[in-house]
Amino acid sequence: MFELMERQRACRRFTDADVSDEVVERVLRAATRAPSAENAQPWVFVVVRSASTRAALGEIMRQAWEGGARRFSEGRLAPALLADVDQGATGSLAEAPVHVVVGADLDRCLPQTVGSSIFPAVQNLLLAATDLGLGSVLTTLAATQADEVRRLTGLAPTIDVVALIPLGWPARALGPSSRRPLSEVAFRETADHPW
Amino acid sequence: MFELMERQRACRRFTDADVSDEVVERVLRAATRAPSAENAQPWVFVVVRSASTRAALGEIMRQAWEGGARRFSEGRLAPALLADVDQGATGSLAEAPVHVVVGADLDRCLPQTVGSSIFPAVQNLLLAATDLGLGSVLTTLAATQADEVRRLTGLAPTIDVVALIPLGWPARALGPSSRRPLSEVAFRETADHPW
Repeated sequence: MFELMERQRACRRFTDADVSDEVVERVLRAATRAPSAENAQPWVFVVVRSASTRAALGEIMRQAWEGGARRFSEGRLAPALLADVDQGATGSLAEAPVHVVVGADLDRCLPQTVGSSIFPAVQNLLLAATDLGLGSVLTTLAATQADEVRRLTGLAPTIDVVALIPLGWPARALGPSSRRPLSEVAFRETADHPW
Repeated sequence: MFELMERQRACRRFTDADVSDEVVERVLRAATRAPSAENAQPWVFVVVRSASTRAALGEIMRQAWEGGARRFSEGRLAPALLADVDQGATGSLAEAPVHVVVGADLDRCLPQTVGSSIFPAVQNLLLAATDLGLGSVLTTLAATQADEVRRLTGLAPTIDVVALIPLGWPARALGPSSRRPLSEVAFRETADHPW
């Protein structure tokens, strides 16, 4: 399992090959095993295969990226990552054969517990995808245009739009990921004693 | 890995046995393999073993629970779960030999990306703990008293307090978890077509 976690990478380019319902269902089942506040399981997953809906979701991501997010990120991301996100947000993400729109049912959780109730499930989904050889990436750009996403997917106004996860088969091998050392991010007892 | 995800449960009662640094380090390393917005890795982990700090963190959880959260939850939780949370929030969580305080460095992420940048790492941590036989539980009660948690752990004001995860060896076997069926939470194309 540790080896699987090390292999998990953001994938933003996909082949044309389809992803079967059986594979989609396995990653969704993995997602639903995650913990949530009060075990209320407020997650909602809309599996989008329709080419026109995926194009519309892609357009939402493109507008959110070019309309502001890119300006925020361009001084912060390494050039290779910026180029990859650029390509993803302006077209290659929309080409993934499956988009999983992830929502949070606000009749089942408070706004302040959306994060702790949804992203553990999202991480299970991403790990399961990795385990099956699928490419995937956690995106939240579309969540900034929640009304438009709800209109496309028929989600009720009480469903908070949290994430969009493209799923498909990776178009190229993904290299190893880089991480800050534990001594920078972990501490003993208090924040002045690095691990 | 699917089997591991099915085994993950909230554990709120622990034995007296200690948890070695080696075991703690393995779960922290697993946490740091998770994705985050811009790969900025804004996570901060403070590993607390001090009995007095754990008692103080326990007191923060107790006050948050009895001061309001319990009232919100008592009509919503099944009686057995309410009793378990009652016992946890009023004492048994504080008895776990290790508390991992999880923060988000707001110099590395926006407030709106804290959830997507921290809870995938938290889920990796919980899965790794499960894999090693540790008991663990995702709690966010202490986050409602962030100033007090920062004072106890020396975290800077720019670190958002997100979660507290007690770690220890389970005092009793944990049964299977219950989950809503996929047909309630997953949909095809639009929210009016259940999976």
